[in-house]
Amino acid sequence: MKLSTAYIPVLKETPSEAQIVSHQLMLRAGLIRQLGAGMYTWLPLGLKVLQNISNVIRREMDAAGSQEILMSTLQPAELWQKSGRYESYGKEMLRFKDRHEREMLYGPTNEEVVTDLFHQTVKSYKALPQLWYQIQWKFRDEIRPRFGVMRGREFLMKDGYSFDLDYERARKTYETMFTTYLRIFKALGVNAVPVKADSGPIGGDLTHEFHILADTGESALYYDAAFEDIDPATLTLAQAQSLYAMADEMHIPENCPVPPERLKTRRGIEVGHIFYFATKYSEKLEAVVTGEDGQPVTTHMGAYGIGVSRLVGAIIEASHDKDGIIWPAAVAPFQIGLVNLKATDAQCTKVADELYASLTAQGITVLYDDKDDRVGAKLATMDLLGLPWQVLVGQKSLENGQIELKNRKTGEKSFVPLSNATAEIQHLLNLKL
Amino acid sequence: MKLSTAYIPVLKETPSEAQIVSHQLMLRAGLIRQLGAGMYTWLPLGLKVLQNISNVIRREMDAAGSQEILMSTLQPAELWQKSGRYESYGKEMLRFKDRHEREMLYGPTNEEVVTDLFHQTVKSYKALPQLWYQIQWKFRDEIRPRFGVMRGREFLMKDGYSFDLDYERARKTYETMFTTYLRIFKALGVNAVPVKADSGPIGGDLTHEFHILADTGESALYYDAAFEDIDPATLTLAQAQSLYAMADEMHIPENCPVPPERLKTRRGIEVGHIFYFATKYSEKLEAVVTGEDGQPVTTHMGAYGIGVSRLVGAIIEASHDKDGIIWPAAVAPFQIGLVNLKATDAQCTKVADELYASLTAQGITVLYDDKDDRVGAKLATMDLLGLPWQVLVGQKSLENGQIELKNRKTGEKSFVPLSNATAEIQHLLNLKL
Repeated sequence: MKLSTAYIPVLKETPSEAQIVSHQLMLRAGLIRQLGAGMYTWLPLGLKVLQNISNVIRREMDAAGSQEILMSTLQPAELWQKSGRYESYGKEMLRFKDRHEREMLYGPTNEEVVTDLFHQTVKSYKALPQLWYQIQWKFRDEIRPRFGVMRGREFLMKDGYSFDLDYERARKTYETMFTTYLRIFKALGVNAVPVKADSGPIGGDLTHEFHILADTGESALYYDAAFEDIDPATLTLAQAQSLYAMADEMHIPENCPVPPERLKTRRGIEVGHIFYFATKYSEKLEAVVTGEDGQPVTTHMGAYGIGVSRLVGAIIEASHDKDGIIWPAAVAPFQIGLVNLKATDAQCTKVADELYASLTAQGITVLYDDKDDRVGAKLATMDLLGLPWQVLVGQKSLENGQIELKNRKTGEKSFVPLSNATAEIQHLLNLKL
Repeated sequence: MKLSTAYIPVLKETPSEAQIVSHQLMLRAGLIRQLGAGMYTWLPLGLKVLQNISNVIRREMDAAGSQEILMSTLQPAELWQKSGRYESYGKEMLRFKDRHEREMLYGPTNEEVVTDLFHQTVKSYKALPQLWYQIQWKFRDEIRPRFGVMRGREFLMKDGYSFDLDYERARKTYETMFTTYLRIFKALGVNAVPVKADSGPIGGDLTHEFHILADTGESALYYDAAFEDIDPATLTLAQAQSLYAMADEMHIPENCPVPPERLKTRRGIEVGHIFYFATKYSEKLEAVVTGEDGQPVTTHMGAYGIGVSRLVGAIIEASHDKDGIIWPAAVAPFQIGLVNLKATDAQCTKVADELYASLTAQGITVLYDDKDDRVGAKLATMDLLGLPWQVLVGQKSLENGQIELKNRKTGEKSFVPLSNATAEIQHLLNLKL
């Protein structure tokens, strides 16, 4: 895509309404615009990131045997009356009546709908386990929406649900989802720590939150330093259970078993939460199958959430510098930022045009700054947008038959012979630095 | 995907609530389940079709220079008060108040939001034209939702918008979208006829509806037989304007210039609608840029809609037989239905398992019926699901070292040597029959 025609309305000034850095950078880099309190329009660059994150999640959820479905955003009130949550949910649930005066709501979460779907469509123990997920917009009427997409009202969430025959099998499914979550965050290029969550009145130890480490995080995390020596993608639930990791609301210093020299404290942003529910919803909404002996069995359920739109903000909180965003490769809206440093020079333009064509022909996604603008402004915009690699075409390096490559994260620059440029760039992308 | 673990709840009986064939088949083939009046949950098979259609639309819209954005489903009432449509829209608009008593609505369409976005982000004639689109859920509170996803309340729509400097340029953009629409429907594998639509109080000739031809269609279409000799993908707006094509509400027999022997009548289902708006919204919501001479210029707008969820039903109306759905290749949820006709036979199972592995390894999407069930039931289910090609593995043909291929549309069967099966199937898929 050429920057001259791309719809990327960058802002020079930091908008005064944005208090945290991810919100500021999302507005400045033209990823989103606010429509109303806690409601955003996703512009092309922001939408690409949202789609990239969604596709990573899809790939890993599918590989774990979960099947994608899609529920409507609006729901009839009846199912919530059955579960008993219609009264208890509070003002964050947006309620209204349709033209026939039927009570409805905008789904803040989907346990009721999905459990009723199971009730309607699954009859036998032979069909278990069932794991379903969706990536769909939800609405929670926050009293004070803030921090951009980090605490919006309309937000994109991956919510998954599982149905098993008994506790043991449900626990295995929970373990699968636990490791799947670690794989997802690793694939997204962020460090996530699983911490024990408050299981509330259900009790038990089967609920975890996943926090992305970021200095600007909302919660303090306390965890055993041993966590940092483990590859998160191979961490099992049993290992995680054996190591201490708590968010501040669950951390009681007097009870902490980790010696102070091994206790790490860092800040984190919650981006995922998994639960084992037992039969809380399956009893009320009749997620019951016929067991092997012909008797009815109430299924054991789990639920597995990831804040997809929130992740866009959280990744930026975890990965930026004073100049702008630093996208991990897996979520970057384009792989390469190609800059023609002197668009008025025929040779620069010829080389940049040809590079754009050859990179694009290889399936590499390129944002090509073909605009006639000051070099300083062009480089500042590319740094702000945060694509992993910059390819700079300028008069000086071309005199030596070279182009310049810059790694956005490390700032390292190198010169590459023009004749070899496409192959070298392809090589760098394959390394996934 | 193996049918034994796939979540595809097929129904043996035709559900009594479904009046039209596409609704019946969508329920029977396990594509959707109803959640409430005009609201559906999309199950894995239905969701894949919805995603396939969306991706074809994305590819063609991107190629036409339109950029994808995503607006929130909910909107503040203010913008609609500015355009004057808040009062006039009627009861199909779902209105409500949030917890702070602010008036809001569920977007039935997005002219107001997108025109305000343009106002906020585009300032100069140099940035024109701008073409944007989104694929997002919308809600219209139909008084009597019916016909499944063909007239639902919550529905998925591709809505696109364009902003140009003057009428001449806006007309060119309209032409581009007109031909893009023909390309989209051709790529989806359906026959669409563009008919002149009622332009209402705006006047002019720049509004067309696109109807898919289907015997069960809701509207009668009257058109010049010459339309059928044209490749829809090369038809220009000028050609279309010169040939008569009207839906029944616009067709006045006395005024029809086509001689009776050349006048074709078929039924159609409206799946797309494009408009040129002139400055109707850009005046009220200030989509104004600075022109070349420094003076403000009010932009000329167009809007371009496709009913994505409606298309799923419309394609089935246009492409089915008494046994079930017949998916066009581009939208089929899987390319191949592989059936092990005798799952209790070791040789059949070995061959079917190996074929599943080798086809999948080549990137071919396969639904593999690995279940132990009666042959008749298995074949009936595969016909119902409507995948373009069936690969049948049975004892008899294996004795001759063969497997059987069946084209779902034509019913043609052929035998292929097992040794050559994967290559032959790959070849058939490349032919895009």
